[in-house]
Amino acid sequence: MSKIKVAVFFGGKSFEHDVSILTGLQSIQVMDITKYEPIPVYVDKDGLWWTGLELFNIKNYPIKQKIKSKLKQVYLKIGDNITKPTLQIKNKFFNNKILFDIALLSFHGSYGENGSMQGLFEIANIAYTGADVLSSSVYMSKNITKKICRELSINVLNDISLTKPSNEEFLDVKKLINDLTLDYPVFIKPANLGSSIGIYKASNQKELTTSLLEVFKIDDEVIIEPYVENLVEYNIAVMKNNAGEIITSVIEQPNNKDDYLTFEDKYLSSDSSKKKVANITAIPSDELIESRRIFKPTLSKEQETFIITSAKKLFQAMGATGSPRIDFLSNKKTGEIWLNEVNPIPGANAFYLWQNSDYKINYTELIDIMIENGMKNYKKKEKNIDLKISSSVIFK
Amino acid sequence: MSKIKVAVFFGGKSFEHDVSILTGLQSIQVMDITKYEPIPVYVDKDGLWWTGLELFNIKNYPIKQKIKSKLKQVYLKIGDNITKPTLQIKNKFFNNKILFDIALLSFHGSYGENGSMQGLFEIANIAYTGADVLSSSVYMSKNITKKICRELSINVLNDISLTKPSNEEFLDVKKLINDLTLDYPVFIKPANLGSSIGIYKASNQKELTTSLLEVFKIDDEVIIEPYVENLVEYNIAVMKNNAGEIITSVIEQPNNKDDYLTFEDKYLSSDSSKKKVANITAIPSDELIESRRIFKPTLSKEQETFIITSAKKLFQAMGATGSPRIDFLSNKKTGEIWLNEVNPIPGANAFYLWQNSDYKINYTELIDIMIENGMKNYKKKEKNIDLKISSSVIFK
Repeated sequence: MSKIKVAVFFGGKSFEHDVSILTGLQSIQVMDITKYEPIPVYVDKDGLWWTGLELFNIKNYPIKQKIKSKLKQVYLKIGDNITKPTLQIKNKFFNNKILFDIALLSFHGSYGENGSMQGLFEIANIAYTGADVLSSSVYMSKNITKKICRELSINVLNDISLTKPSNEEFLDVKKLINDLTLDYPVFIKPANLGSSIGIYKASNQKELTTSLLEVFKIDDEVIIEPYVENLVEYNIAVMKNNAGEIITSVIEQPNNKDDYLTFEDKYLSSDSSKKKVANITAIPSDELIESRRIFKPTLSKEQETFIITSAKKLFQAMGATGSPRIDFLSNKKTGEIWLNEVNPIPGANAFYLWQNSDYKINYTELIDIMIENGMKNYKKKEKNIDLKISSSVIFK
Repeated sequence: MSKIKVAVFFGGKSFEHDVSILTGLQSIQVMDITKYEPIPVYVDKDGLWWTGLELFNIKNYPIKQKIKSKLKQVYLKIGDNITKPTLQIKNKFFNNKILFDIALLSFHGSYGENGSMQGLFEIANIAYTGADVLSSSVYMSKNITKKICRELSINVLNDISLTKPSNEEFLDVKKLINDLTLDYPVFIKPANLGSSIGIYKASNQKELTTSLLEVFKIDDEVIIEPYVENLVEYNIAVMKNNAGEIITSVIEQPNNKDDYLTFEDKYLSSDSSKKKVANITAIPSDELIESRRIFKPTLSKEQETFIITSAKKLFQAMGATGSPRIDFLSNKKTGEIWLNEVNPIPGANAFYLWQNSDYKINYTELIDIMIENGMKNYKKKEKNIDLKISSSVIFK
């Protein structure tokens, strides 16, 4: 039996370009190569697509011009008759096609995680991993996710949503908030970026104005939420297993000291000299993983039930595609807890949450499930399209 | 000043392929040619893209092989460095590019209206008309749209949502509904198709089972709603005008006698011999438009206010992109009224609703506004992407 060719997409026009590289390389590294053949597809910050053996080596990142000259530039044709997913190699007239079976999407941030990239693969009629267009786009909007949570009786923070004024000068932003009555302090968050980037705390109207000016630089929409005292965060991952049952991972309590660390600091090692070592790996060590979070933190029975049932309920309501990580906020002292946001493609695919779950699903098995789910969703759609087109005759 | 090149996309892998052709041809026909140069792009039922002068002539539809041989097959390159939106002409090595400025999306149904096509143009970095990825995908899900409406306190019908069992045999579907306690009669509707196709009424469990089997052929998810006695429908369109204000159209009460008419019957003329006439047009006559609906139907002040404010509120909450038509159901006798569903790209762009509104926006002006809004959304995004990439340096 021939292997399934998996085009692993990573990089992209996003704040989280670098983290996406790691998630992509991890998938390649752990993938079961008796079943899968990985094809790396690196999307640079200009949106150009590249492939080549050099992409397998983490030491070649960030990709410099010297490496790029060894890579092949590739593209997808949309609108052409393609029987099998095909990457076209640029400026080659023979052997200019790379066939594959499924796209493993390892993007983080708005470019590849918000439904757009998923839509591209829908139109291209190519199987892809992760959440579908609808749920990806909803998850990446804090605003709409919270609306759906409220309807599902999932506790979320109150918020006020503001749209960037057409003229984003100090005076216009000030005018925007003049009539607001707020209980300071408040959090100011970009409504559509799926990361901790651009989150500010404001204790008065002046700080709010300044923060809004900053956030409007990166998002057209902000949400203002009450500041949570004694803040702790809890995360959980959720997906369908191969039997089609919805399962949840272990719960983690991340520590957030690493908010502004560099690529190397955050993901590879605190000792940058290690980057020179030959067998450097994209997979963080167990030690590193455990230093950044507490697994199975102390929670009341109510809190634990809330986290698990909310994650399942929201995932189910959104159609149960992908393997998102769902993040919660809590006031450690009062025990109050709120669903905060959903990451359709969490960093490192949240493998450590599955690895430390009761199911003990390791990273290799996780990638396996993600690919199988992607294939299943694709086959289901294919069948529907056939039926749709053929039944249209009935209505004529 | 050179004209803005508008690639008008229509057709597609959808139930509503034929209607989409008409909407596309209408846009071309009414477009202000002192400002715009239309480029027709026909997407056939296999998903292949075609362009050529023959597409301008309505008499050439449905497109037969003889016509196809005169057309040029075109495709988009995704992942390549493209400074301006470009259609590549297949099998040509010189003069093989058609440049354009914006895509005018005239698709109806899941293929082009549900966020996927919108995502493709996002990734391709091409301006497009209509609702964005998030709102398109939400509007095309009756389920999620209703959840958001409830959170916005917009009245919608109660519903039960069912997912297709993995084995869609009679017995499995029967099992699915065995535990449901329903007040018959009920409506059974596909959750994700934006048209009146596949809607059934069931008066008992047996009819429900049969209907579910039918709907599961075309959608993986159905919603069951209470049957509305003395049913009347009301529709309204909503958009941002060139000044950025949210405006609503006149309200119509459609008559639904034409549910199962043919392409010609429904859109061109009741006299099929007229199809042979040279100056046949894609634009329905005022007479035809008025025969199919009542403008400004008799409504109570409360009903009218509910329709207008609900349309504006939902449109605003979803980010205020595009020019959707929002449909309502009402019990004529009791006066009860519910928001039913949203069409992100309504048939004929709902031009007749704008033409007959207080704003008296004709079809030419409507296309103008749609193109301007598409350009504005694109420019806003472009600016954000630049800022996003450059600011990412701050966080490293």
